[in-house]
Amino acid sequence: MRQSKLFMPTLKEAPADAVAESHKLMLRGGYVRQVTAGVYAYLPLGYRVLSKAEQIMREEMAKINVPEMAMPDLLPATLWEESGRWQKYGPEMFKLKDRHGRQSLLGPTHEETFTDIVAKDLKSYKQMPIALFQIQSKFRDENRPRFGLLRSREFIMLDAYSFAATKEQLDQQFEDEKKAFTAAYHRCGLKVTPVIADSGTMGGKNSTEFQAPAAIGEDTIATNETGTYSANLEMACSIDTFKQEEEELKQVEEVATPGQETISDLVDFLKVPATRIVKSILYIANENEKVLVLIRGDKQVNEIKLKHLLDVDSLRVATDAELTDITGVTKGSVGPINADWADQVVADNTVNNLYNFVVGANKKGFQFKNVNLGRDFNPDKFADVRVANEGEPDPVDHLPLKFTTSIEVGHIFKLGTYYTKTMGANFLDKNGKAQPVIMGSYGIGVTRVLSAVIEQHLTKNGVAWPKEIAPFDLHIVQMKMKDEGQTNLAQKLEEKYSAKYDVLYDDRNERAGVKFADADLLGAPVRVTVGKKANEEVVEVKRPTDEKATEMTLSELDEFINKELG
Amino acid sequence: MRQSKLFMPTLKEAPADAVAESHKLMLRGGYVRQVTAGVYAYLPLGYRVLSKAEQIMREEMAKINVPEMAMPDLLPATLWEESGRWQKYGPEMFKLKDRHGRQSLLGPTHEETFTDIVAKDLKSYKQMPIALFQIQSKFRDENRPRFGLLRSREFIMLDAYSFAATKEQLDQQFEDEKKAFTAAYHRCGLKVTPVIADSGTMGGKNSTEFQAPAAIGEDTIATNETGTYSANLEMACSIDTFKQEEEELKQVEEVATPGQETISDLVDFLKVPATRIVKSILYIANENEKVLVLIRGDKQVNEIKLKHLLDVDSLRVATDAELTDITGVTKGSVGPINADWADQVVADNTVNNLYNFVVGANKKGFQFKNVNLGRDFNPDKFADVRVANEGEPDPVDHLPLKFTTSIEVGHIFKLGTYYTKTMGANFLDKNGKAQPVIMGSYGIGVTRVLSAVIEQHLTKNGVAWPKEIAPFDLHIVQMKMKDEGQTNLAQKLEEKYSAKYDVLYDDRNERAGVKFADADLLGAPVRVTVGKKANEEVVEVKRPTDEKATEMTLSELDEFINKELG
Repeated sequence: MRQSKLFMPTLKEAPADAVAESHKLMLRGGYVRQVTAGVYAYLPLGYRVLSKAEQIMREEMAKINVPEMAMPDLLPATLWEESGRWQKYGPEMFKLKDRHGRQSLLGPTHEETFTDIVAKDLKSYKQMPIALFQIQSKFRDENRPRFGLLRSREFIMLDAYSFAATKEQLDQQFEDEKKAFTAAYHRCGLKVTPVIADSGTMGGKNSTEFQAPAAIGEDTIATNETGTYSANLEMACSIDTFKQEEEELKQVEEVATPGQETISDLVDFLKVPATRIVKSILYIANENEKVLVLIRGDKQVNEIKLKHLLDVDSLRVATDAELTDITGVTKGSVGPINADWADQVVADNTVNNLYNFVVGANKKGFQFKNVNLGRDFNPDKFADVRVANEGEPDPVDHLPLKFTTSIEVGHIFKLGTYYTKTMGANFLDKNGKAQPVIMGSYGIGVTRVLSAVIEQHLTKNGVAWPKEIAPFDLHIVQMKMKDEGQTNLAQKLEEKYSAKYDVLYDDRNERAGVKFADADLLGAPVRVTVGKKANEEVVEVKRPTDEKATEMTLSELDEFINKELG
Repeated sequence: MRQSKLFMPTLKEAPADAVAESHKLMLRGGYVRQVTAGVYAYLPLGYRVLSKAEQIMREEMAKINVPEMAMPDLLPATLWEESGRWQKYGPEMFKLKDRHGRQSLLGPTHEETFTDIVAKDLKSYKQMPIALFQIQSKFRDENRPRFGLLRSREFIMLDAYSFAATKEQLDQQFEDEKKAFTAAYHRCGLKVTPVIADSGTMGGKNSTEFQAPAAIGEDTIATNETGTYSANLEMACSIDTFKQEEEELKQVEEVATPGQETISDLVDFLKVPATRIVKSILYIANENEKVLVLIRGDKQVNEIKLKHLLDVDSLRVATDAELTDITGVTKGSVGPINADWADQVVADNTVNNLYNFVVGANKKGFQFKNVNLGRDFNPDKFADVRVANEGEPDPVDHLPLKFTTSIEVGHIFKLGTYYTKTMGANFLDKNGKAQPVIMGSYGIGVTRVLSAVIEQHLTKNGVAWPKEIAPFDLHIVQMKMKDEGQTNLAQKLEEKYSAKYDVLYDDRNERAGVKFADADLLGAPVRVTVGKKANEEVVEVKRPTDEKATEMTLSELDEFINKELG
């Protein structure tokens, strides 16, 4: 391809509102342009990278025998009313009415459509397992689109769905998809960690996220050094290393703590360490259940883990007004003794094995000291509902947890019968009995992969694209377009290597400085500069990560290209 | 690919509301499913055909050096307000508001977006010509979606746009695109005729449609047998063969024709042929100009040709009330003599060379007889504004016109500066002077191509896909899955031919009748049945258009496949 025909409008400076390095590079290099907030056009350069990444994903899906199909973007509200998500999904859903007043939406994800169009057509266990995928635009009306393609309102996803008659078939498909996703990321040159994740509003309980470590990431993952444990911080578990020596049980004592609301207030006021205080926090689950949660004073409650434990749709801390209404006291005085108003008392594991600790007295401005489990109260259950801390031992190999910011580039879910039950997608099992189809769903954020790859492969003045998704393999840069010797050599090289590689030939009448700056932004794995020594058939060769270019004869170049590009 | 893994839910009967044969086949064969009115899911089989057609189009665009890119579906209203089409486009545009109340739309076409994102970045004549294309979903809220993919509300288009500094560059790009489109249709196995077309609401004056003759077509094209003239009936011209002998001019005579409104009324009442009567029809152009159109009584006015002649945005026949209001008389009595209320009188060429004819007298219930041009009135202009009739000589080679119903599968436009002027997309010419960029736009209805190919390649029980876009090249159908000899041979053939061809192996536990019926709907160019003679290494081979299958040995099969599939 000739660069004069490639529309690649580069910028000296990225617009001031671009924060993420990948966003800046994509704007500066003419990969993308914003059409409206959080909505992008992929210019030829961006489109090439996108296509190559998609092609890799297609190949990996073919390897696990998953055929491709395509759902529409425009979906009828009726399907989402069936699943209940028309109301539940919230303001991120783009809704619209057609000319006849029928409610429609732009698909943010396609569980409902696949359940309706595919799962309902699977009548017998003999037809299963079946899996399908598509690569398609998705629409989510983000309140605050940012970081370019990382949080945009129209983006491209690969989403796959599996339909099984048995749990074993689902497990197998889940493993196959995990393998295919991992291979695809690897070929795209992306370092990715699969982590334990929260299923969120997708339904189902068992899900794995693929996280690409990067400075700009909006997620935090907790991993040990050997990789035997990795989880999104939202779901991360750790071993609590604090140990209190066993003590003789002292008499409960009521102490006045007027105006002391927080743990640090109480530490100062009572002169006891936070590890001797148990925090009591009142939660409202599903807008009706009162759950009192206890946790050691030096730890924080992880509400996502708590929500999973309680298996509820919604969960929130009670407001101050509700707290007073329910308990008769204010924040700082609530506690587990005589807490008859609580429907359930859940204690984090850090509360176990404490002796003679402090809790709220359920009397305004008072605490109990020397409280002990068993003797003074018993929680309904103990569980891990706390935020893990960096450095704590992981729960598998007891190695210290390390925290890393990262970008979510994929998420796979064992949905089970969440959608098929509500939408009535049944099949007949071996005994002729109707059963709901068992589903899985699997998604790669394709446009996010592009951003994440750039974040992981930045160079001083541009990017070093991994070989398999580089927009071009080989970039031939001719210094002076009016030099006939240079033109002859550049065209000779273009012709020779175009047979095997994607070659871009910079044939523009531009200054050398402009050409080199653009070449850095383009980041082809091998750049060949045809300049002063063209008549001697000597060129300069540079990889994006090389400090300097190297002079090579044509045979040396040939050897180099074979080695680098294969 | 194994058929047990391909989701291809076939139906014995198409739903009753499917009218077009292509629609029925796509539903019966499991190529597509309707998600909501006029919105379809492409199941794996449909998706494969679609991908192959798209790949052909990509290759043809690459041959004319047009890079691919991708615009978003979600567009801001502001761009369409700039061009004026936010109001003009009408109820076919899907409009929506985002969570912040900003008006958006789903792209029905992308002239505005390309002008904004691309043309505005072309600052110098040195950067041009540039052309770009995309293959993408388009959205038009059809009042009455029908015929499956032929008139749907979400569909796939290839749309290309060119940006030129000179008219010559535009002409060259137009020719290149025409060549590429023609080649793409040809490779898809589609018979297509390029015809003179109306640009409609797209702007610009010079456009060519690509029409695929088919029984279900919504268009009519007029062509001569040698192909030297072809036009959409909307734009077709012909030579009027009627000739009236010259006569002595008689005296004008006012005759009462009470209650006679139509030409056939007058023919009966006055006992004169329709060719001696001139119809006068009052049109309202741009909602303010009164245009009186004259045409010989045996011909009809072609309003599209009239609109082009007048160069107006809107044109309609005056209502009865308007007619009375303006002329003082009612339908049937209007005429060109003393028609001072008319801003303009346009006569079709058929009115020329008439003698002693009848026109309305502008007096209720009266006509003038023996009227003559020149002596009694003079139109402001003569032009061809009539509907061509089948059998009339074409205007190029004077061969009889033949009418054919057909499907519009593409349309290319010389837009000129229609969008760039209103949206302010200028470049600096050689003299440093700002000029509006000169645009062209070029579209293929990709999903329509699928329907049109099926319409042109129907067989008794299914379809005979052209080789380059068949979902699979080779269909291996094993009769009995429990027969080990058959399994061995089928798998051997699958392995052998998969290296070079797209092979589908029907490995399902289904009855032979089901398998054959499905194979007819799938329509692979070559079907190989592995049945009773598997142990002798003899198979049955059939092309979709063959009446019967032919027994072949494996070496005969090999030769046959090489010949058929290349």
